[in-house]
Amino acid sequence: MSTLKDVAEKAGVTVTTVSRVLNNRGYISEATRKKVYRVMKEMDYQPNELARSLSKNKANIIGVIVPSVMHPYFCEVVNYLEFYASRAGYKLMLCNSNHQKDKEYEYIKMLKSNKVSGIILSSRTENIENFLPVNLPVILFERDTSNRISSISCDNYSGGEMAARHLVACGCKNLIHISGIQNILMPADARKDAFVRVCEDNQIPYKVFSTEETQFLSLDYEEALEQIILSNPDVDGIFASSDVIAAGIIRVCSKNKIRIPEDIKLVGFDDIKLASLTTPKITTIHQPIEQMCACAIDILIRQIDDGFLPSKTVLPIFLFKREST
Amino acid sequence: MSTLKDVAEKAGVTVTTVSRVLNNRGYISEATRKKVYRVMKEMDYQPNELARSLSKNKANIIGVIVPSVMHPYFCEVVNYLEFYASRAGYKLMLCNSNHQKDKEYEYIKMLKSNKVSGIILSSRTENIENFLPVNLPVILFERDTSNRISSISCDNYSGGEMAARHLVACGCKNLIHISGIQNILMPADARKDAFVRVCEDNQIPYKVFSTEETQFLSLDYEEALEQIILSNPDVDGIFASSDVIAAGIIRVCSKNKIRIPEDIKLVGFDDIKLASLTTPKITTIHQPIEQMCACAIDILIRQIDDGFLPSKTVLPIFLFKREST
Repeated sequence: MSTLKDVAEKAGVTVTTVSRVLNNRGYISEATRKKVYRVMKEMDYQPNELARSLSKNKANIIGVIVPSVMHPYFCEVVNYLEFYASRAGYKLMLCNSNHQKDKEYEYIKMLKSNKVSGIILSSRTENIENFLPVNLPVILFERDTSNRISSISCDNYSGGEMAARHLVACGCKNLIHISGIQNILMPADARKDAFVRVCEDNQIPYKVFSTEETQFLSLDYEEALEQIILSNPDVDGIFASSDVIAAGIIRVCSKNKIRIPEDIKLVGFDDIKLASLTTPKITTIHQPIEQMCACAIDILIRQIDDGFLPSKTVLPIFLFKREST
Repeated sequence: MSTLKDVAEKAGVTVTTVSRVLNNRGYISEATRKKVYRVMKEMDYQPNELARSLSKNKANIIGVIVPSVMHPYFCEVVNYLEFYASRAGYKLMLCNSNHQKDKEYEYIKMLKSNKVSGIILSSRTENIENFLPVNLPVILFERDTSNRISSISCDNYSGGEMAARHLVACGCKNLIHISGIQNILMPADARKDAFVRVCEDNQIPYKVFSTEETQFLSLDYEEALEQIILSNPDVDGIFASSDVIAAGIIRVCSKNKIRIPEDIKLVGFDDIKLASLTTPKITTIHQPIEQMCACAIDILIRQIDDGFLPSKTVLPIFLFKREST
């Protein structure tokens, strides 16, 4: 493989000149610049990114920690994060924590010793400040439990409100909410709070059931959902905290000859691809996932370049009416 | 942050000794080793992975290039690759090529200049040898168009055969196959060849329709599928080359009051999570995705450690009968 020295020799300039061209530093005549680039191309010269990173003591890498890229929501998130990171000249190092605190901590240590420029973290967050290295830009994604760390999330409270109000407007008299994971603090908890508030304001009887971490990771909610639905025969409207849960409800209802939307009206959350692949397609709260990712990369890079200033960014949601209501 | 020198001073040994302990080289007494580890722990010493990588001129990173991690098949692949890589002490750098040749080439160059230890590549592969750096271990994943590069795939031919035979055994008299993307060479093409062979052996009339790259990336096949199904009213069995396509067929049939499995029997391919989230659940050919990923990481690491010897690995598939046949 050609080195900087080979390029310099062939172009008849000094190594310093080649280095200046590469780093766009100091005065270099246009003719020299062109000659150096021509020779680099001819010799297929690749700058050693590792060496460059070491000299800056920072790699152009963004670490991303998600519970599992296999979850349909997070595969969309990781996809868009990679797209916008790549466009800004950063590479993505991907870590799946499976919501395990220890694994998460190991990953943070690993990313730190690999000198990543910043971390986007969407995972268990209790006391996360204690684990995070100082001076390393971090963005919490759809998690927000620390005032010292920047976060991006969607407007979960309004989403829950919109979902519940839509079910009420559809004439539902008996509501159920299947909520997020018990014992993990998430902005998604706000969806539940809003749902409860709307039911109470409208004097509509309601029940809330929470879900488990193992269900989240396996995507398998059916058994629990079947028990909930069969033991609540009067229910005529369900707000599911994710489209994955909503898809499980569709399966259970179909199996038990309960018609959606005739017998039960159903609203999901997230608006992932899955929401339009089920039969019926799911009426859901649209999270602007792509914009949230673009925003997360933007804010992280601003922090990398210009230093810290923890910001909270909330993006708007809207109701996407499909076939399940 | 503590340095090697700080650790050496505090432990009362030389920097060389600390370095030997870290790299497990040369003779070090058990007492010294323990003392050094204790001090490293006390001082929260993190080795600088960048510096270590540079001294080896190789980073413990595996580059993964897939068309899109948003595709339900590839999000499972990336998830398992990360799991097995992490277990073996490697990090994953993720790249989405969107099947674009230029982007793929850029990513390969980028991974090379970041000194990754190896690449797992699942993407467009015409003349891929010309793009790949020499002396860099590469594994093609569910792509196999070069005898000079190792590959992992599932037994696509047997899968196609099994799917077609199952439809014939179910009594279907008029078959359709919706195949992979036109103009991209894939092992998945073998699914079609096997389907055609089974139809001809059994003298069953059949048609084959190929799909487009834009459909693959958007996951949106419905319009095209509706046209195919409505203009072939005699069809009573469909073999879809992926579960994503099969889910689209379920949607179209439901919309047009065609019953599955009563009117049309349907077999998918891949056995991704989606196959059990649709209504009806999809009878499909199970690819051992997790084992394929474990195998890819194993073979890649063997190549990294012990040098090259291009191997072709094919893992077995089986038919998972669910509700669509």
